[in-house]
Amino acid sequence: MRSPQVQAARNGETPSPSPPHHQHRQQQHHHHNQTPFHSTLSVQKLRRFNSLIFVFRLAAFSFSFASSVFMLTNSRGSASPRWYDFDAFRFVFAANAIVALYSLFEMVASVWEISRGVTLFPEVLQVWFDFGHDQVFAYLLLSADSAGTALARVLKGLDTCNASSAFCVQADIAIALGFAGFLFLGFSSLLSGFRVACFIINGSRFHL
Amino acid sequence: MRSPQVQAARNGETPSPSPPHHQHRQQQHHHHNQTPFHSTLSVQKLRRFNSLIFVFRLAAFSFSFASSVFMLTNSRGSASPRWYDFDAFRFVFAANAIVALYSLFEMVASVWEISRGVTLFPEVLQVWFDFGHDQVFAYLLLSADSAGTALARVLKGLDTCNASSAFCVQADIAIALGFAGFLFLGFSSLLSGFRVACFIINGSRFHL
Repeated sequence: MRSPQVQAARNGETPSPSPPHHQHRQQQHHHHNQTPFHSTLSVQKLRRFNSLIFVFRLAAFSFSFASSVFMLTNSRGSASPRWYDFDAFRFVFAANAIVALYSLFEMVASVWEISRGVTLFPEVLQVWFDFGHDQVFAYLLLSADSAGTALARVLKGLDTCNASSAFCVQADIAIALGFAGFLFLGFSSLLSGFRVACFIINGSRFHL
Repeated sequence: MRSPQVQAARNGETPSPSPPHHQHRQQQHHHHNQTPFHSTLSVQKLRRFNSLIFVFRLAAFSFSFASSVFMLTNSRGSASPRWYDFDAFRFVFAANAIVALYSLFEMVASVWEISRGVTLFPEVLQVWFDFGHDQVFAYLLLSADSAGTALARVLKGLDTCNASSAFCVQADIAIALGFAGFLFLGFSSLLSGFRVACFIINGSRFHL
């Protein structure tokens, strides 16, 4: 069941007591090309799983980067209100910038893993790092976007938005983009949570 | 490794192809008392896992129930502002009430599972129901509390809080209790996520 690539990814670990349908991997060597049909299938599934994570990372990066740019450029002359005078908008910008940087790093780690078959950090560190940061940053981003939404609604009630409606529209767009980024970060966190559970149960990040 | 109780909990399922250290469970019958030492240990671990979930549910229920009561009773005569005039505060109340009801139901389901050894719903439905609702409600509650925080900060800047500071203090307490409820709901969602992953990987909600 386990592919040679999986075997190569677990280098440095002592083999755990294995169920019988996994036994043949001790006899295999990953430079040989005697891969049975199942292993090829496993490798394909594995690559699809990693590609899916990469796509989610890319989407999260795009949306959160766009959101932080929209928020950052939201100042129109001295008459208009400035975004950094509102703490909820500062929170939106900071959370989106953090998520954009993190997603960029995770995209690099993901490409590394797809191309080389090993994780960037040691495996145990990598799965917990990914999962922990996904969870925390997803909650952080949602919290920032909700706070921004509440502030934007209050500003509509006051006369700030009547005086400079472009400011409010641009802030709304930045918040909406942040919510889209949160959505994809949430999907990533589900997948990386599954990898952590695989690691706890099987001692490897692969479920195949 | 699998206990008789686990076996009883999987009634109605065809046994999946098992690794060798699980083979003895086909020969066991759960009315016999020939349980080896390992099975007793598994049952204990299982009960500890379920008890931990129950404790988190109880804490989430307590905090979100207290939060919704604090928000609901936050009206002091006709001169004071009323909580239901602010949409973010309505959101805080609604989210906390929903989470309190859901946690109450899940506590019943958890007690049922601990006492009888089977889930309230069929197993596949139960694990996905728990995980899905935990995730969605945790995000909902965090979103509501963040929006409430943003509104409370804005109100402090306006003169609403100077006129009736008790209103603002009570709203702050309700929001803080909501954050505590979110914390425990988030822990529950980690545990129920682990159960879902166990179910996907092993075909059972138990990892032991």
